[in-house]
Amino acid sequence: MKTLLDVVKEIDSFPYHGSTDYNQFTDSLWRFYLPDDPRPHGYIPNFVAETMPWTPDFHLDASSVPKRIQLIADSPATANKAIASLLQTARERNLFPGLTGWRNEEYRVLGAKSDIRIERAGASLLGITTTGVHMTVYTRSRGGSGQLLIWVPKRSASTKVNPGKLDNSVAGGVPAGMQPFACLLKEAAEEASLPEELMRRCAKAVGCVTEFSAKDGGKGVLAPSLKYVYDMEVDGEMELRPGDDEVEEFRLMTAVEVKESILEGEFKPMCVMVLIDFLVRHGVLTCEDERDYAELVARTHRYLPFPTS
Amino acid sequence: MKTLLDVVKEIDSFPYHGSTDYNQFTDSLWRFYLPDDPRPHGYIPNFVAETMPWTPDFHLDASSVPKRIQLIADSPATANKAIASLLQTARERNLFPGLTGWRNEEYRVLGAKSDIRIERAGASLLGITTTGVHMTVYTRSRGGSGQLLIWVPKRSASTKVNPGKLDNSVAGGVPAGMQPFACLLKEAAEEASLPEELMRRCAKAVGCVTEFSAKDGGKGVLAPSLKYVYDMEVDGEMELRPGDDEVEEFRLMTAVEVKESILEGEFKPMCVMVLIDFLVRHGVLTCEDERDYAELVARTHRYLPFPTS
Repeated sequence: MKTLLDVVKEIDSFPYHGSTDYNQFTDSLWRFYLPDDPRPHGYIPNFVAETMPWTPDFHLDASSVPKRIQLIADSPATANKAIASLLQTARERNLFPGLTGWRNEEYRVLGAKSDIRIERAGASLLGITTTGVHMTVYTRSRGGSGQLLIWVPKRSASTKVNPGKLDNSVAGGVPAGMQPFACLLKEAAEEASLPEELMRRCAKAVGCVTEFSAKDGGKGVLAPSLKYVYDMEVDGEMELRPGDDEVEEFRLMTAVEVKESILEGEFKPMCVMVLIDFLVRHGVLTCEDERDYAELVARTHRYLPFPTS
Repeated sequence: MKTLLDVVKEIDSFPYHGSTDYNQFTDSLWRFYLPDDPRPHGYIPNFVAETMPWTPDFHLDASSVPKRIQLIADSPATANKAIASLLQTARERNLFPGLTGWRNEEYRVLGAKSDIRIERAGASLLGITTTGVHMTVYTRSRGGSGQLLIWVPKRSASTKVNPGKLDNSVAGGVPAGMQPFACLLKEAAEEASLPEELMRRCAKAVGCVTEFSAKDGGKGVLAPSLKYVYDMEVDGEMELRPGDDEVEEFRLMTAVEVKESILEGEFKPMCVMVLIDFLVRHGVLTCEDERDYAELVARTHRYLPFPTS
């Protein structure tokens, strides 16, 4: 029988410092540096470093410990041009499957000293932390119990990414140039037809969750992620309805059903940390009943080895 | 002008992996091991390892990397006897100032495979994670604004520990043999005269916070800590009143006043992580307004290098 911690470990799969495979794994990685910033902004595995069509804007130093890739640019504009041109070339040559999902939408590099941007589909190739907003919309059952009921969208069977999976009530990446809450307003209208007036009155910022995924045991790309988390309680009259074709329907699930669906892998993996954080903050999971409570709380708020401010 | 992150760094002062002083600092420490458990349960600085009157129950290996102190015992009972006798001797010889605060109350060693216990005043000498419960009691101002108001006790000027400081509404260490929520019920009655019926109906488990303190830059003891966190919203009629002499009075403070008092050092340091977590979960701090938001959230939920389950 799988536990929540098992599920979390599959998602937050980059080893923790102190684990047996940590040193061997991280020693093999390249650190990615932006101009005039001594803090690494991403880890890059060997197969990416070897395959990427680096231009002279990127200085690779395999002899330093750990290995370094330094972007050299005299302004944010030239830095952005160098990154965009690198990824565009890699895409044209079809070097990485991830780039087939090119979005023409950019993330701002979190914690960079200036406005450095990267195409969403290319962020994880350079190990750049992606930024999202996730909101859980919930209500309480009528009658005495006041049981928590969560509005869960089921993705359409015909959608390209994660067909048929369950999703967070509202979720999306934060594009460069947009503040997280403004992004949430946009996504809430598009995905769940939630009006801005209701959102401004009832949506509440409640924290953020983090994870660091190392797909295929590090043979795939490394994807650190930060999600700003919001809750919105609505009354029992309110009904969520899909705002686009990606979602087939919204259903109300009890907190216990949500937990079971996480364990059965019915949710998109990127929802899991947000939902566990929700279940903890609302007292559905407690330290008395959930053996791995403290570890779940710590792992859903992992300290990323990259700047966040 | 101090920031919340500055305050958090003073409390959560054990260096993070990747920081410049991490390796040098942690390499100097001893790891403390319980019988039949490959996971270290604490870090011990040199001055403690050199001063502690170790008995043959403890095997010190200075040649291993990192250095190890292994408790050898064939049962939980003999392990507990060895720890108690070690600390009792150290106390009698007056070897460590911390042991003058001997409580005759034991913590259970978190995550130990059996019921291993340690006197509260001695936990940090062996680097054992301490366990507490903290509850924030709050209400909302009348009228349209619904502003959050937090019930804050001011400690008596004549109390021995932290006289005159502000404190969490209810807080205490979890003694061995007691579940966290049961402990909270006891503390709520003793410290704030809160009846059990109200607590069972309104107190909500909302997570846990962690911190790892390295006092005096590691020249003092190392104190990892885990606090189970609860919220309780009460109506405007309810008034909290001290249940013992440690507290002089309870006052209602706005969330902004609480934040300012944290910055001015008016709260006991052990309250800070709990209050910042509260301010984040209730949307008082947001990623738009607080530059270090993501780092504050990660640091208040630090992954401790010791077992928690």
